[in-house]
Amino acid sequence: MKNLLLAQSGGPTAAINATVAGAVAYALKCDKIDKIYAGRNGIKGIIEGRLVEIGKRLSDEKEMHLLETTPSSALGSCRLKLKDDDKETFEKIVSVFREYNIGYFVYTGGNDSMDTVLKLSRYFEKEGITDIKVMGAPKTIDNDLPETDHTPGFGSAAKYIATSFAEIGRDCDVYDIPAVTVVEVMGRNAGWLTASAALGRVNGTSAPDLIYLPEVAFDIDSFIEDIKAKLNEKPALVVAVSEGIKDKDGKYAAEAYQSGVVDAFGHKYLAGTAKFLTDIIRERIGCKVRAIELNLMQRCAAHIASKTDIEESKALGAAAVERAVNGASGEMTIITRQAGSDYKTAISSVDIALVANEEKVIPRNWINEKGNDVTDECVDYIKPLILGETEPVFENGVPKHFIL
Amino acid sequence: MKNLLLAQSGGPTAAINATVAGAVAYALKCDKIDKIYAGRNGIKGIIEGRLVEIGKRLSDEKEMHLLETTPSSALGSCRLKLKDDDKETFEKIVSVFREYNIGYFVYTGGNDSMDTVLKLSRYFEKEGITDIKVMGAPKTIDNDLPETDHTPGFGSAAKYIATSFAEIGRDCDVYDIPAVTVVEVMGRNAGWLTASAALGRVNGTSAPDLIYLPEVAFDIDSFIEDIKAKLNEKPALVVAVSEGIKDKDGKYAAEAYQSGVVDAFGHKYLAGTAKFLTDIIRERIGCKVRAIELNLMQRCAAHIASKTDIEESKALGAAAVERAVNGASGEMTIITRQAGSDYKTAISSVDIALVANEEKVIPRNWINEKGNDVTDECVDYIKPLILGETEPVFENGVPKHFIL
Repeated sequence: MKNLLLAQSGGPTAAINATVAGAVAYALKCDKIDKIYAGRNGIKGIIEGRLVEIGKRLSDEKEMHLLETTPSSALGSCRLKLKDDDKETFEKIVSVFREYNIGYFVYTGGNDSMDTVLKLSRYFEKEGITDIKVMGAPKTIDNDLPETDHTPGFGSAAKYIATSFAEIGRDCDVYDIPAVTVVEVMGRNAGWLTASAALGRVNGTSAPDLIYLPEVAFDIDSFIEDIKAKLNEKPALVVAVSEGIKDKDGKYAAEAYQSGVVDAFGHKYLAGTAKFLTDIIRERIGCKVRAIELNLMQRCAAHIASKTDIEESKALGAAAVERAVNGASGEMTIITRQAGSDYKTAISSVDIALVANEEKVIPRNWINEKGNDVTDECVDYIKPLILGETEPVFENGVPKHFIL
Repeated sequence: MKNLLLAQSGGPTAAINATVAGAVAYALKCDKIDKIYAGRNGIKGIIEGRLVEIGKRLSDEKEMHLLETTPSSALGSCRLKLKDDDKETFEKIVSVFREYNIGYFVYTGGNDSMDTVLKLSRYFEKEGITDIKVMGAPKTIDNDLPETDHTPGFGSAAKYIATSFAEIGRDCDVYDIPAVTVVEVMGRNAGWLTASAALGRVNGTSAPDLIYLPEVAFDIDSFIEDIKAKLNEKPALVVAVSEGIKDKDGKYAAEAYQSGVVDAFGHKYLAGTAKFLTDIIRERIGCKVRAIELNLMQRCAAHIASKTDIEESKALGAAAVERAVNGASGEMTIITRQAGSDYKTAISSVDIALVANEEKVIPRNWINEKGNDVTDECVDYIKPLILGETEPVFENGVPKHFIL
């Protein structure tokens, strides 16, 4: 019997541990798998031989529940990208796999991680290594992977973002004087996370009043006109902006306006997008402003994870192991949304070459004509992904986490 | 029978609506009170005659639960401070009270709001108006009011802060390279909120690794030494800093180092404290850095409110009405902590003059000698205040709020 190796890489999410939990749960019941190992710090740790047996600890249901509700990558992460011609590294990986009798390797991550799966599986094929199966399980809050309807981690981040916009909206609504709060959301090229701010309005309130995405060229003058028009309707505005908004030449909006600005040490200084926009609003309109960055919290707030996201993540992890055990290699598990008004999904897998290094952005027809909001179609797409609440384990008033 | 008037002012919290809910619940059962009015936008709206009857809507249990779990000030807020010699304004207030037959007025807020209660009750006393009772119910995330063991709103903010530090700690822990994340917490003069970051460690993890409070003079060189020493122990640090840290001359730390820096418009620019500190760490140590501001989320994240905080807030609101109906005026309701190892509290009230315009900071002996962490005594004081979770009403995956 062969052993299973699990590892994670890329930026953390609130759901990436659920994928590992799903893989472990399947493996524990599978009679073709002996031991279950975790590779620490992704492929980097595997190259260094840092493997830990985790099957025993996770056969305890409580530990498994803890893992599912723990944010970030419990196994550690890395940003290492394999080079095609780095034969030595590939050989090192094979020797570690042989040492630990690994027959199945499931790597959970985003674009770069799927590139690793692609390169490893191609190397194995080229070298005639057929007894080690390599599978990818998707993960990224950015929701920018192709082929899969959406990515695990996105739903939980979207739920935190929507909830925070609803709450910030209430906070900003208490004074009856003109004020603009600009909230910056992650996503350099794909605006999915910023679009999910629209879900803050789902229970009938107004925040966010405007939404700016990287998919549409950003124009400062139109932006100021949009703000002025909205301020004529109501005093307190909440505006969602992607960190990645760019002008028509593809230059980051914040960068285009800040050349020459230096920090206290004389270094080139680049304020965040929200900070930069509030500076402009103060300058041109003169009202009260506030800049907020949702920052790391949007990807690690597991205390308000989406149950739908967590359950799907587990299913994708389990399916990756199942496919590997059944002989598949060089594939990534995906979610397909069924036709019809009810939200129904199916799990399958695709050739990793279709996924690696591709990026999916919001279609233009899901953004309104003026480019300052999303359409109902976009909201309807995101809505089912944030449904349901998980049950974090609170101890001493604070969520308890699984620490490897 | 007289009517009850409720209003809120100052910065919002996650618990200020619970205080109103508690006051309404008591009033609905009290046979000495007829109608229940809300004054919109605090004393400012009252002066403008903007009163709304809310008793009928809130006799529905579901609406009451919604109000309890809604963040920010559902009745609206203001920043207006009454002037002692502004006879016209006082007379306007009295005429509005007469028009609506108000016999009891409960004002929920922080320092400035208690000043309003003080001035109004003194004016009534001076003018021989004995049939309108004025009571204060405390509220401030800053926990800086004297006389009361702690303030409503603090426990919920502290729970969000502790949870976010625990989660950010997990997020920052995934890479094995030196990196410092500085997280800025609210509190200009009192460090209670920043101190509550220590509760992020309560389930056995390390974040925050260092804590800097406004109560101790901040020294850049010692700060850099502290960071260097910790980086020798572990790669990824999470540091909690108050927005209000000041140097030995009482100047805000960020200000002292940024004179001369201007923004893209040539205006004087002041980066946030966290941003400024990460600039210095990058300059002097050269490792990866990230600045995070918990910003408004720390005071409006009702989705992770403390049940203890919400229950106490309701009790303080109810007690304010009870005291007023029994003839008290010019007082604020307070929480007293009973002696003993179990957390037990009693609700009473004190003369508002003891509270208004006073500020309570962290005692020096609750901060460690080096001034870069809090003591166990401080943690033990905060711990019971963040216990328990509330039940926000989720609809479409997002908490639903009470909108007046």
